[in-house]
Amino acid sequence: MKRIFGEIEGFKEGHQFNNRMEISISGIHRPPQAGISGSQNEGADSIVISGGYEDDKDFGNEIIYTGHGGRSNETGKQVADQQLTRQNLALAKSCLEGLPIRVIRGRHKGSKFGPDEGYRYDGLYLIEKYWKKKGKSGYYVFLFKLIKIEKSISNIQNIVEESPEEYQTKRVSTQVQRIIRNTQLSRKIKDLYNYKCQICNTRIETSSGYYAEAAHIKPLGSPHNGPDVIENLLCLCPNHHVMFDFGGFSILPNLDIIGIEGGLTVHKKHKISIDYLSYHFEHFYDERNKKDF
Amino acid sequence: MKRIFGEIEGFKEGHQFNNRMEISISGIHRPPQAGISGSQNEGADSIVISGGYEDDKDFGNEIIYTGHGGRSNETGKQVADQQLTRQNLALAKSCLEGLPIRVIRGRHKGSKFGPDEGYRYDGLYLIEKYWKKKGKSGYYVFLFKLIKIEKSISNIQNIVEESPEEYQTKRVSTQVQRIIRNTQLSRKIKDLYNYKCQICNTRIETSSGYYAEAAHIKPLGSPHNGPDVIENLLCLCPNHHVMFDFGGFSILPNLDIIGIEGGLTVHKKHKISIDYLSYHFEHFYDERNKKDF
Repeated sequence: MKRIFGEIEGFKEGHQFNNRMEISISGIHRPPQAGISGSQNEGADSIVISGGYEDDKDFGNEIIYTGHGGRSNETGKQVADQQLTRQNLALAKSCLEGLPIRVIRGRHKGSKFGPDEGYRYDGLYLIEKYWKKKGKSGYYVFLFKLIKIEKSISNIQNIVEESPEEYQTKRVSTQVQRIIRNTQLSRKIKDLYNYKCQICNTRIETSSGYYAEAAHIKPLGSPHNGPDVIENLLCLCPNHHVMFDFGGFSILPNLDIIGIEGGLTVHKKHKISIDYLSYHFEHFYDERNKKDF
Repeated sequence: MKRIFGEIEGFKEGHQFNNRMEISISGIHRPPQAGISGSQNEGADSIVISGGYEDDKDFGNEIIYTGHGGRSNETGKQVADQQLTRQNLALAKSCLEGLPIRVIRGRHKGSKFGPDEGYRYDGLYLIEKYWKKKGKSGYYVFLFKLIKIEKSISNIQNIVEESPEEYQTKRVSTQVQRIIRNTQLSRKIKDLYNYKCQICNTRIETSSGYYAEAAHIKPLGSPHNGPDVIENLLCLCPNHHVMFDFGGFSILPNLDIIGIEGGLTVHKKHKISIDYLSYHFEHFYDERNKKDF
């Protein structure tokens, strides 16, 4: 059966279900037991939140969702590191590709956003980012930050989709993929390197000037809350920015590159923070995941 | 004097001015006569809309603004092609860098969004895109599509900026730069080329898989309204996507590349529309603008 991303006809946000089998039959979330629906080639299309993961956080329109694996079948406790494989890789793929995720909440203690009984379809979310960290258990877990689309992306789409009809029909598949932000210091770092990428020395030329991106080593925004300071910035071409943000390479404390060939160009006026580099290495780079897709 | 992008302290949206000199002194729009404030190195920081350009369109939250130049001093009529230089290049730079533009409307006939008298500061806009076309006069003019930030980007920022204080203080300089959209056909074109760029054959590797972007030749959305069909798509790396969207190169009807070295890889199952290529060439590529910045 073809995997459907986005809304399922006939099931509006707020739809109530009595049990997982009803949800499975509806197509909102096919797997009758697993919390994540998806494959590593296609991406993930839906998740069920029903408690149980100690690192989960539910703020309503924003969810920190713990990946799959590493838990004991007997005790349910985390007893091993999670891997960026299978369902976790499916969620990562949806993040990379900007695919929408259907979120279903089940009733459970400790969440004020869950339904009073059974399950409820709570609409479409985007995975803004994912990372790994040592969870409360002491083992590495993968965490995925989901943002409700109503609150965010539907407004972005209004920028570009003119007719309401067009917007409606495209809604299922049209999503924002990557948002590159400008900050006060963006231009400073780009000027310092004259718009050349610190990895490949490429300088993008357009009809309106050179183009480069200022990449934050420790990301801005919750939960990483990296600062907007020059010690936390790199000047990268768009290609190396994507690779850096999605763990294609990282930078060691001695400024050697790991994950790809080549070296880092560093201007003598640019002091890069070792702490932020270590943060990136620990949370975003995973050598085990250099695999053949 | 340092050019300020974004809000000017002490002047809220809706602030009324009697004349251009008052606006100039306030810092909302420094030039006492010119409609565009900016330089090609820094970008444009503000515009005044006061009628007179026959290709202008004002929809309130969305504005099609005509660039500067090519008009007769005597008659005010368009008598020559506009160039992507000076103030026009400043606006293009603000588009490329995602810089906010202050918009001031003056009273004039034919706009229901102008003030009843004098001038009014109407808040911050982003330039979503720019292009050139033969205007009503028969001469080429540059057109800039501006979108009000309140309606769009402030919501995007809510995704990433957590604390209201942080959001307030960063508002002036933090802007969205590039929005890459996914459409129903995005994956199809990427699969066809196995995520390799049709220009440079690069394939970006991340920890969650390969990454490429589906680029629309004739852009989606108004006023271009290019269709989301495979004949209107290219599979590009992020670097060549930026260059293509911002006129760094174009593709001729015989599929030769113009503007940069190299050739286009085309899969035998991929029929590219000559019409859409011609549209891109005419509206986005300008050989005269291959200059040294």
